[in-house]
Formats: sequence, structure tokens, C-alpha cells
Amino acid sequence: MISEKMVDLVKNSSVIRSMFEEGKRLAGIYGAENVYDFSLGNPSVEPPVEIKEALLQVLNEESPSMVHGYMNNSGYEDVREKVSENLNKRFETDFNKDNIIMTVGAAGGLNVILKTLLNPNEEVLTFAPFFGEYRNYVSNFDGKLTVVPPNTVDFQPNLDEFEQLISKKTKAVIINSPNNPTGVVYSEQTILKLAEILNKKQKEFGISIYLISDEPYRELAYDGIDVPYLTKYYRNTIVGYSFSKSLSLPGERIGYLVIPNEVDDYENVIGAANVANRILGYVNAPSLIQRAVAKCLDSSVDLEIYNRNRELIYNSLISYGYQCVKPQGAFYLFVKALEEDEKAFAQAAKKHNILIVPGSSFGCPGYCRIAYCVDYSMIERALPGFKKLAQEYGIMK
Amino acid sequence: MISEKMVDLVKNSSVIRSMFEEGKRLAGIYGAENVYDFSLGNPSVEPPVEIKEALLQVLNEESPSMVHGYMNNSGYEDVREKVSENLNKRFETDFNKDNIIMTVGAAGGLNVILKTLLNPNEEVLTFAPFFGEYRNYVSNFDGKLTVVPPNTVDFQPNLDEFEQLISKKTKAVIINSPNNPTGVVYSEQTILKLAEILNKKQKEFGISIYLISDEPYRELAYDGIDVPYLTKYYRNTIVGYSFSKSLSLPGERIGYLVIPNEVDDYENVIGAANVANRILGYVNAPSLIQRAVAKCLDSSVDLEIYNRNRELIYNSLISYGYQCVKPQGAFYLFVKALEEDEKAFAQAAKKHNILIVPGSSFGCPGYCRIAYCVDYSMIERALPGFKKLAQEYGIMK
Repeated sequence: MISEKMVDLVKNSSVIRSMFEEGKRLAGIYGAENVYDFSLGNPSVEPPVEIKEALLQVLNEESPSMVHGYMNNSGYEDVREKVSENLNKRFETDFNKDNIIMTVGAAGGLNVILKTLLNPNEEVLTFAPFFGEYRNYVSNFDGKLTVVPPNTVDFQPNLDEFEQLISKKTKAVIINSPNNPTGVVYSEQTILKLAEILNKKQKEFGISIYLISDEPYRELAYDGIDVPYLTKYYRNTIVGYSFSKSLSLPGERIGYLVIPNEVDDYENVIGAANVANRILGYVNAPSLIQRAVAKCLDSSVDLEIYNRNRELIYNSLISYGYQCVKPQGAFYLFVKALEEDEKAFAQAAKKHNILIVPGSSFGCPGYCRIAYCVDYSMIERALPGFKKLAQEYGIMK
Repeated sequence: MISEKMVDLVKNSSVIRSMFEEGKRLAGIYGAENVYDFSLGNPSVEPPVEIKEALLQVLNEESPSMVHGYMNNSGYEDVREKVSENLNKRFETDFNKDNIIMTVGAAGGLNVILKTLLNPNEEVLTFAPFFGEYRNYVSNFDGKLTVVPPNTVDFQPNLDEFEQLISKKTKAVIINSPNNPTGVVYSEQTILKLAEILNKKQKEFGISIYLISDEPYRELAYDGIDVPYLTKYYRNTIVGYSFSKSLSLPGERIGYLVIPNEVDDYENVIGAANVANRILGYVNAPSLIQRAVAKCLDSSVDLEIYNRNRELIYNSLISYGYQCVKPQGAFYLFVKALEEDEKAFAQAAKKHNILIVPGSSFGCPGYCRIAYCVDYSMIERALPGFKKLAQEYGIMK
């Protein structure tokens, strides 16, 4: 009786659920402490104390009717003002509240902007490996997702193939840096070249191509690496941000879109995004948490905890003979599978009670994603299994 | 550059915005206290104190990683358990957590269930007058909204025309009681007859027709009137609930869907709704407020405040010669316009600084909606204007 579109989606979700059930089954047999689940991108670091303080302050000092009430569909004006000021301070931009729409997380923001922009059959490009939900978000509006094949040398975007794939039907490009699943940060050189190609193609086809920068991992960057702020490199950039990882608030569904004055057709884009936020059923980003994050714009989770995990797992895997690019951000590591079929490799890992996600879920077979947003001690306990796996495949140096 | 579908929506939203701007303009000229804005359904009664207490308790006693973290896309299991137990206690139903999906308000819930059910061009029926957003929600999934003409005698649904309009393409029916914009509660007699027609048509066409009960105003019912719980009357009923009005939390975006075991294709419907919640970009209902409302399921705003408003405005308007059905619930009153063109009537009201919404926005021309979720004193100040308006049209008794 359900929608035909949903039938396959339900089947796929059963596959994920059965992975989850499998983890529970293994935990039942071997004990939870002997199962090493690296499959979920669920922040393991506690929210900073400032969040609790901010929530208490809002609850104790502001009017309940205002704190829990309706506001403009784009969010509270003072919250949007603070967000824009904070961005200007950090990135030398020139935004104001009318460039900001508070959203139900980055997922809500992406759906809002895709609803705003896409006509049926228009194309959205993204670079493999990529967050699999983009496929659903584009399909929600009958768009067509075209995936640029991966560059597995360093996982920077494959820009030559990108240029070939842009067509008159291209309406938007989604990029995600620091990247899920590789942890790679797209370099300034990459961004400059990307902008050059987009500008050239806009002229060639006489169209507007919007660059949608999906940035839930912006603040999770290590070794002081610079994550370029894209509105400064390409005029038609729209940023989708989330506080899910920077403040460990993934359940709260809070983020924002930045739509700069400079984007083509700004008035219509911002107007339509405001309406899309309403009619997609979000109505507005949740109110109390809007007011709380506005007080925590300079706060962050303790990055050193993720960094310590990163160093341990990366250095260990390399010492066992695995191949992977050292992640510069996010909390993922994308390791080359030890056989061609990475799904078989993930099955082999499971025999050591190690749960990892095959790269085909991210449009990049031959690799697996390890989410290291877990307890340090779990990584320590899992390492012997990774070592034995390397021995089984005969790659141990 | 924006989506063609969005172009008209942006234009319409500018009309609403210009109404709002007009209100501000009038306030600038006459003073805010001399402008009587009855156009918005924004709760004026404060949230009950239990909400603040519950939020503080959650923040002080529960783990921040859990309170702000990811959970199943359908919501926390303990929250869904409590919601189902509360429904069972109040309505003698037999639900459990697997019948409940926590949603981003009722708007989120309606979009989730429509995404779950609708194939392109399938029909959804609703009864005029109706909440205008249904049109957008159905259109989000390329469904076709068919509106059953109003029964302006008592604003119970027009069931004879309803029966004629059901076709093989009918997938769902949305009803809303207590109703926005009339405040009418659909009687048990209405519901029994509605169920009978639906059962007959399901058999006749060999299809499943889901009855979607949109219930943001369930708790706002006066004089002890009974609001029938629809799952008990019709097997294929799905309930969409919101805490926006019962606890005055419209900004928080928190509600739930009830999908009973008995609905046709239950396993697929509940599975697809869980997936739809995720891929529509909601991911899950906001987490902290989920935990807080679960502690306030027996709480309510102070209904007597709305009731006092209701009595004042209804009795006054009737005494001036206006015609309207006495609202039994919600916080709206649907008054017959004093000329055929209700938009012209709304303009005439504006000359007395009274802002009301023309019924054509609700699929019912000839009437206007007065939202009495405002300060009692504002109603008092507005009454002389309503009286003069009645005199101008010569209906004053």
C-alpha cells in the first residue's frame, strides 16, 4: 500500500537494521566490550559545558512564550544576527541576518535549498566518495544525482572528470569538506580550480550553477589545517552548516543555511528557501536550541579526544601494512580493503568482531569507512583484530 | 533561477508578508494597542510551568550525550512507550512504542505519512474549510488534493459530496477536528458515518484508504465536549499529533504519529514512515524536547483563558448581529462576512484596525477567520470596531 518510491528504501533500511542487529547478536555472544562497532558517525565526545549553561540561562532568564513560540520561518532575528556576526569575525565575510536561515540540522538545510532550486530532472553533481543521503535528498525533488568518480590517490575531487560531467542541466554541486567518509579536507588549490571550472561552465552554458557546501564537519579539523570558506572563492556558493558535530548535538536538529547577497537571483532564492522551510514541514528550526547555540558560537567539543583516536588508529593501521590517506578532519578514516570486494573484506573483519561500512555505500567500492568517534579504549581493544586481519591477508610488514 | 514550483509559492508568501507589513504600518500610525490583529494562530497562553521543570530535570539529571544525541529515527524508545501508555489510559486504546513515531511537529508528521503513502497523482481528500498548508504538503509528493465543499450550516463535513468524490485513486483523507478555521468538533455521529462510507468505498474499489487525523487542537475543547479518538472508529486511521497548542510549544516542533497495528500493510507503513522521517531531512524529532514532553503528557495550558476569550468574542459578535457557529474547540471563530466578497469585508474591517483572514485561504469564501488566541483586553478594545462594522452594514439588531 505504501508509495512505490518507498519500497526499495524500506528494503535498504532493513539491510542497515540487520547490520545493527548483527552487532547486537555479536555482543550477546562475545560481550559488548568485545565487539568493535566502527559503523556509526555518532559523536562520542560530550557536548561542551557551555551548552548546558546556555540552555539554563535561556530557560531562567527569557520569556517562555518567546523561547518556545513561533518566530519567522527563517529563525529568530537576534540568533541570525549573531550567527552572521560570528561568521564575519572568523572568515572576514560580510553577512547579515538576511543571509541566514536557521534549519533543522544540515539535512534540513540541504532539503530546503534543493527544494528551492530543483526542477524535475535537473542535475546535481557530487564527488565520490560522498554521504549516501545526498541521493535521497536530490530524489525528494525529482532531481538527478550525477556522481563524479573518485580520485583514490589523495581523495581530492576529480576535477577533470567533473568538468566533463557538467551540462546545461546542471543546477547545483554538493561538496563536503572535511569529508565523510574520507576525512580529507579539500585544499585551497582544489577550491580555486573548482571555482574556475564552475565560472567557465556558467558562461559556456549561460546558466547559474550553485555550489552547496555541506559543512557539518567544518570545526573538526586537525593540526591547524585551514578549511577554506567557500563563499570567498565562488560567488554562487550556499553553505549548509550543522551544530551536530561541533557541539555534539546531533539529536537536536539545529543548523543553518548561508545564502549570500551575491548569489544569482538572491531575492528569490532567499524568499523561496524561507517558504520551503515552512512547506516541507520543518516550519522553523527548533526554538529553544536556536537560542542556546547562539550563545555558544565560539564553543566546540574537545577536539583533542578525536585527534588522539585518529593518531592511534591511523598509525596502527599503517604499521600493520594497511593503506589509507591520513584524515585531516571529521572522525572517519577510509581504508583500502585488503581484497577487491570490500564487502567481503568487511565480512572478514566481522569475524574479528570489527564492524566497518563498505565504501560502495559512499559510491567508492574497494574501501571501507572506519568511524573513530568511539572510546579510545575500544580502539585499543580492536587493534589486535585489525592486526590479525592484516596477517590473514599477508600484508603485515 | 529557482524551481518553477516555488515561483508562485514565493508570490503568495509575499501577499501574507504584506498583510503582516500592513499590520506594522497601522501600528506605526495608530499605536500598537489600537491595532487588533486576529490573523495569526499563535498561542497566547504561556506554556505550563511543568515544561520548564521537566526541561531543567532532564538537563540536570540525564546524560548530555544521551539527551542531545542520535536515537532511532522514530524517537527515544522510553518516550514512545510513555506516549503510547498515556494514549491507552486516556482513550482505552492498545498501543505500544512500535505504534509511535516522534515527529517535527504535526507538520512534520503529515509530511512523513504523505511521503510514505503517496504515488504521483494519487488523491487526498479533505473537507473545506481546511488548513491551507495541506495543499502544499500533498503537492510535495505530487499528490492531488481534492476538496470536499463546505457544509456552511454547522461546518460538520459534507459527507454526501464526500462519498461522491472518492475514487479508485483516493489514497488518503485528512480531517482536522477541532477544526482550523471553524473551531467545530466533528461529532461522533459524523465519524460513524464517515467510517461507514470509507469502509464501503474500500470494498467497492478494492483499495485501502487511510484516514489521517490532524490533531493539533485535540486538547483545546470546551464545555467538556468529547473529541472522538478516531482509531476506534475506523481501522485505517493514522493520527498526527502536536504539542504546539496543548503545551504552547509551537517553536519547538514536537509531535508524533500514531500508526496502529491494525492499519493495512502495517509493517511497511511503519517501516517507510521511519525511513521517510530520515530522508525528508528531519532525521528525528528534536531530542531534548522529546524527553521533556514525555514528562508532561497529562499537562495542558490553562484552557480557561482561551475559553474566556471565546465567550467574549462569540457572545459580542452574536449580539451585534453577526452569524457564526459557536466554536467548540481550537482558538478560532469563523464568522460569515457581511458581504458576499469576504476579501472586501476583511478590507472594511481593516478600516477599524481589525485584521482577520479571508475564508478563501481555507477553501471557504464568504467567511473570515478570527483567531482569538490573543489578550482578552485586545478583544475588549476591538469590540467597538466590530460593532461599528455591523452598523455600517446595517445588520445591527
